[in-house]
Amino acid sequence: MSSSTAAGPAFSHRKGLRDSGIGSGDRAHYLLCRAQRLTRPLLRAAFDTLPSELRLMAEYHVGWCDANGVVTAGESGRGLRPALVLAAAGALGAQPAAAVHAAAAVEMVHNFTVIHDDIVDGDTVRRGRPAVWQLWGVDDAVLVGDALHSLAIWTLADAPAAATLDSIARLADVVIELCLGRHHDRAQDSGHGGSLAECLETQRHQRAALLGCACAIGALCAGAPSEAVAAMDRFGRELGLACQLCEDLRGIWGEPGNPSRPVGHDLMRRKHSLPVVAALESPTPAGREFAALYASADALDREAAVRAADLIARAGGKDWAQAESRRHQRAAADMLAGRPAADLLALAECVVPRDR
Amino acid sequence: MSSSTAAGPAFSHRKGLRDSGIGSGDRAHYLLCRAQRLTRPLLRAAFDTLPSELRLMAEYHVGWCDANGVVTAGESGRGLRPALVLAAAGALGAQPAAAVHAAAAVEMVHNFTVIHDDIVDGDTVRRGRPAVWQLWGVDDAVLVGDALHSLAIWTLADAPAAATLDSIARLADVVIELCLGRHHDRAQDSGHGGSLAECLETQRHQRAALLGCACAIGALCAGAPSEAVAAMDRFGRELGLACQLCEDLRGIWGEPGNPSRPVGHDLMRRKHSLPVVAALESPTPAGREFAALYASADALDREAAVRAADLIARAGGKDWAQAESRRHQRAAADMLAGRPAADLLALAECVVPRDR
Repeated sequence: MSSSTAAGPAFSHRKGLRDSGIGSGDRAHYLLCRAQRLTRPLLRAAFDTLPSELRLMAEYHVGWCDANGVVTAGESGRGLRPALVLAAAGALGAQPAAAVHAAAAVEMVHNFTVIHDDIVDGDTVRRGRPAVWQLWGVDDAVLVGDALHSLAIWTLADAPAAATLDSIARLADVVIELCLGRHHDRAQDSGHGGSLAECLETQRHQRAALLGCACAIGALCAGAPSEAVAAMDRFGRELGLACQLCEDLRGIWGEPGNPSRPVGHDLMRRKHSLPVVAALESPTPAGREFAALYASADALDREAAVRAADLIARAGGKDWAQAESRRHQRAAADMLAGRPAADLLALAECVVPRDR
Repeated sequence: MSSSTAAGPAFSHRKGLRDSGIGSGDRAHYLLCRAQRLTRPLLRAAFDTLPSELRLMAEYHVGWCDANGVVTAGESGRGLRPALVLAAAGALGAQPAAAVHAAAAVEMVHNFTVIHDDIVDGDTVRRGRPAVWQLWGVDDAVLVGDALHSLAIWTLADAPAAATLDSIARLADVVIELCLGRHHDRAQDSGHGGSLAECLETQRHQRAALLGCACAIGALCAGAPSEAVAAMDRFGRELGLACQLCEDLRGIWGEPGNPSRPVGHDLMRRKHSLPVVAALESPTPAGREFAALYASADALDREAAVRAADLIARAGGKDWAQAESRRHQRAAADMLAGRPAADLLALAECVVPRDR
């Protein structure tokens, strides 16, 4: 794919972001809201087909109600994946209506994997509330995850798009990839370690894979040729890695305005996130000191976690993660060269902010 | 659907079984072997696409290898579901090749649900070997179940049949129904009880639902009209209930030649199987005595379980289950009236033997 030139499309991806009157943040906010507005009725209708016993758990998980079924105002998650499906379809000439089933299906797959991942990882809190398995037990959490998995497929099988079978096969494929990624992630987090290269490979099979799938399915909904579908997949995967690195940075150095994510949050749980593994492999004195601290049997309290964060930074883990995140973000943008993909780039800019 | 008459098809379903030179057991054995022979290459090819870490667990589960990946001679399960898919397709005029992807997909869904059900039910042994979660933990068992679930969909999406989207939607639907059934089964088994009517309803959403789906998808592969698809679904569901009742009878009164299934097996685990619930609702002295025994906090040893089995029989639970099983088997056969469905009836006869 050629990069855009002066003779290229009037609205090149780089130009689009910098010169459009509207900030990319505003545009991204609009796209995220639009995706929620368009997919919500379909998600509602699909959830309504679930037996009530399973529906309550599913609706609690996505933030539509509390554990007793009382409607809540909140919405869990910002809906990045549906927005990517619609934006990818749009970049290839399709109207949102052609991709809205796919957007809802990808969102359901995301939610099903989160429910199961919380079991697998033993995470008790999800988006500020008890995880499904904490409230209803592992048994029911396994079952409602399975039901949402099938509901996603059912929603896609019900779509009007011509390329539905391809989309279903791709969604099935990515779930298997996500299972592999989670399997390795568990092994690497539970003490077996893993080199930086291995941990990066594991991350490729997690968030990155699903964002890639979201964009590829959007392209399929637009009837795009296989080359464009593959480029969209790569865009999503690169963006996913950039996102993951940002997430890892926030997990260590905190998130302004989010008190549930203080400095050192992931370190107290001894998570082997990417900046951690980069620091563990660093031959610097700070790296060695951090490795000894992380390997000790002592619990890491808040104070020790803040010291660990400082050691990771001094070992180069923070700089590395920031540089890698930017590199993957650029690689993502390169995949779109020559396409009128301002919306995809606005979303990319929003989830991987420049000023981190 | 009219019942067969003297002027009906030359090979009516009742006549076929009794007058054909070949015993239905021989025919059923041939059909089960044929289904394994036809689906095995497709299952192998599909499993080969799994990442090796997940493939080992999946192949162990279906009995192709031991926990170290060493090939074993065994095959787990007799492959009833694939045989039903092929026989239903055949009864509606399709060659096996048209339904072999569907048969493999249904078998994978069956296996994925078994892996997850063993977690949900805390069953440690599956087909005489440790369950997947016992060997690899709940985490990996959740993941390999999810992967097999998606592999089933992927296999069906890859099928050449015209009615593939309908089959996928039906398979997705039945998984949700199975989740509901398992949810209620857990609630009823974990002390909340449930009336006989409620327990029967729960059973309709388990084995019966999947056998119904197997037959319906076979019909879809044959391009059958919706009326025939619905009849096949009902055939499978009735057969499934008959099967379940037989299974429950064997769980209480043992299975000749199977030392791992002695008399009282399910009672020692205080399972609320259908004959148990029938006895609990019986207003007879034996029923009341059994209810008191089952409600006591004492562990039920082998001797107490044999006594409990006797009480269930005296309370009418055994006669009721046998009569109900025969009734559902007849109702299944009635669904096929007027169709050349000797193979389906041979399978039905084989799994619900007359001499129980």
